[in-house]
Amino acid sequence: MPHGLPALDETHDPARRSWVASANAPGTDFPIQNLPLGVFSRAGGEKRGGIAIGDQVLDLAAGLAAGLFEGAAREAAGAASGPVLNPLLALGRGASRALRRRVSAILAAGSADQAKAAECLVPMDQVALHLPVTVGNFTDFMASRFHTARMGAKRDPANPLPPAFLHLPIAYHSRATTVRVGGEAVARPHGQALGPDGTPRFGPCQALDFELEFGAVIGRANRMGEPIPVARAGEAIFGYCLLNDWSARDVQRFEMMPLGPFLSKSLSTSVSPWIVTAEALAPFAAPAFARFESDPEPLPYLMAAGDQAAGGLDVALDCWMTTPRMRAEGAAPARIVATSLRHLHWTFAQMVAHHTSNGCDLRTGDVLGSGTVSGPEPEGRACLAEVVMEEGGLTLPNGERRSFLEDGDEVWFTGRAERAGYVPIGFGECRARIDPAKSWPMG
Amino acid sequence: MPHGLPALDETHDPARRSWVASANAPGTDFPIQNLPLGVFSRAGGEKRGGIAIGDQVLDLAAGLAAGLFEGAAREAAGAASGPVLNPLLALGRGASRALRRRVSAILAAGSADQAKAAECLVPMDQVALHLPVTVGNFTDFMASRFHTARMGAKRDPANPLPPAFLHLPIAYHSRATTVRVGGEAVARPHGQALGPDGTPRFGPCQALDFELEFGAVIGRANRMGEPIPVARAGEAIFGYCLLNDWSARDVQRFEMMPLGPFLSKSLSTSVSPWIVTAEALAPFAAPAFARFESDPEPLPYLMAAGDQAAGGLDVALDCWMTTPRMRAEGAAPARIVATSLRHLHWTFAQMVAHHTSNGCDLRTGDVLGSGTVSGPEPEGRACLAEVVMEEGGLTLPNGERRSFLEDGDEVWFTGRAERAGYVPIGFGECRARIDPAKSWPMG
Repeated sequence: MPHGLPALDETHDPARRSWVASANAPGTDFPIQNLPLGVFSRAGGEKRGGIAIGDQVLDLAAGLAAGLFEGAAREAAGAASGPVLNPLLALGRGASRALRRRVSAILAAGSADQAKAAECLVPMDQVALHLPVTVGNFTDFMASRFHTARMGAKRDPANPLPPAFLHLPIAYHSRATTVRVGGEAVARPHGQALGPDGTPRFGPCQALDFELEFGAVIGRANRMGEPIPVARAGEAIFGYCLLNDWSARDVQRFEMMPLGPFLSKSLSTSVSPWIVTAEALAPFAAPAFARFESDPEPLPYLMAAGDQAAGGLDVALDCWMTTPRMRAEGAAPARIVATSLRHLHWTFAQMVAHHTSNGCDLRTGDVLGSGTVSGPEPEGRACLAEVVMEEGGLTLPNGERRSFLEDGDEVWFTGRAERAGYVPIGFGECRARIDPAKSWPMG
Repeated sequence: MPHGLPALDETHDPARRSWVASANAPGTDFPIQNLPLGVFSRAGGEKRGGIAIGDQVLDLAAGLAAGLFEGAAREAAGAASGPVLNPLLALGRGASRALRRRVSAILAAGSADQAKAAECLVPMDQVALHLPVTVGNFTDFMASRFHTARMGAKRDPANPLPPAFLHLPIAYHSRATTVRVGGEAVARPHGQALGPDGTPRFGPCQALDFELEFGAVIGRANRMGEPIPVARAGEAIFGYCLLNDWSARDVQRFEMMPLGPFLSKSLSTSVSPWIVTAEALAPFAAPAFARFESDPEPLPYLMAAGDQAAGGLDVALDCWMTTPRMRAEGAAPARIVATSLRHLHWTFAQMVAHHTSNGCDLRTGDVLGSGTVSGPEPEGRACLAEVVMEEGGLTLPNGERRSFLEDGDEVWFTGRAERAGYVPIGFGECRARIDPAKSWPMG
């Protein structure tokens, strides 16, 4: 069994197909092997939990009413059928596993429940998707050494990594209340930054950036004062999503000495609407990052054999972009980043163990961001700041140049877990368009 | 009317006395002019809101049942009678003012309601005090230039202030879930820090410190995307408390480059149990900090004439300490810090305006910490790190030395607002004892 991930079972069987035809289409993000959870609403309707299957959403409340669930699966479906998924997350891994096995059976080709379940499907293009969990706390890590080193190279090319980077997963508390679901536009924020003449000015951010990150959503975790050992830390994670940590770089440069980023990050954080469960990712467990030969061995509280062997995740991550001109000209979206979770120096279990090592509690629905998932190659630069630092900016296929994002630019992330012998699964999209800054309030 | 604080009315009348005798005792923190709110329980009883008066607590639920309230005051008392005060805070300033006027009338000498209200009093020494609000978000500022300059002097004695300090209130998001009520012990946390030989080690913190801070509790504030102009920002604050931002200095030094403090602060934050309302503090409004002549003028979004004239607060703050040996010998507590809120370079209205300037929302029950309220004189060093930096450590009256806190040490803060012509009011205590580190979990 992969470390921190649940055991493989019949739900991972690559031969299993669904009677929902779109779930069997090559390249779908949501085959029957995925079954991610989200919260949706129909026009004028209330928010309720659902499971993505192909281009449809299984309405869990409708499924309950139709008598599709019993026992542990019924309890889990009930906990997941309200306006946020937190009650399901709080039930722990057993519940999400029971729900997954039952939903997989319901949706499998040949299921005796097909007729009943078909009545509980809603086409995904007819629903609005909402923030799937109440995020009490959002902690953002900086777990990619390639991102960290590129950002630190200007400060000290010979020693681009901060002193602690190889010894612990560096992190900061970010703002949970401005985490929003992908799809909502992001207004360019106002902020204070140094102008070209070196004096501070206040106005619309001049260096708005994305950060391609991956997020872990905490399920049932620890109580205050109770550290989670790294060997058990992966179990605290219910599932994963894509995460865009929008960053006002000009504000950040000025504000962050010495207490770290603040308003440059609290402007907005977008997460993808579907949470891919730890169960679904079980086939894609990977070894932890192979430390460089010159790297020190982390201290024992961050090291567990199982986590080193299988605490990573094999997920490819891409960033796509269109500009207003590209859309006007009907140009195809440009893929501007191609990277992989394998580039993270620290596993999520190490992040959880470190986070709780002082007795700090993690709560159901908390989100841990990986930090920018940059890789070593140029296409792995997972935010514009890295590209600006190395090349002054980005050139799009139509010749347009960008240092940072302009109003009307649209950015989205996709993710894909793939391994020979298993059906690939995806994460949907984490998307937003940049709106112009609002007029500044007087007074 | 002082900026951001409510108007003076009969509740501030220094001639008003209470029929609760202890509320008229010289030096009491809780005269009838104060009336702070908290949450208490009797042995085995549920948590409920109350108001401190002398050495008694007015049980608001009992007062409601006795028919002491009507109209707006009744709505406010109802909102304040549950297990947390957030519902009252969400009603806004009008509600807390109505409640204050009514409670002041009930408790005033000569009140027709004395007999009924006397039945609703509980001696404070018979109750447990609880965290009075659900703290959704805890933002910690660094608003004292004296603290900031002392901490920065080692880095660069000629330029001890960070570049942004004089231009904006520097802050970071801290951990809300580990905010607890004063009175609860604080266990020495485990953490990773550099050992004497310069290599990282993991174990119980070796440099545990307090930080004497002042906290503002947000009432009804803004929605996401809507900045609060500085001229109106003071109104977002419901009330104030004492706050101890416990700090693991050895962990902090190692972890904070470049994203700021994380586990060094999330170990625990203690707040005083009684929230002193903005109404109660109206007589103690003071001018904002007088900038040094060489200081730049802050940008307009942080400046309002009313806030500059009266956005400060005249509150004296002290820190007291006993050690196990002092207690064994029956020694009096040592006052180890004497400082004043007047030393804050930024007003709370400026903190609120800056915090929301990028569109970030503040929510009811959020806490803003001032940062260590140090003054320019040696007795104004409001954490041990400053004393260690300048003198290597603290000498207590009995000759004991401390660089940082040892197990069994007890630390508490007191605060006092005082102005000629008004009855002084206090904040109660923010107190905790240091417990030894727990044994480290295996696994």
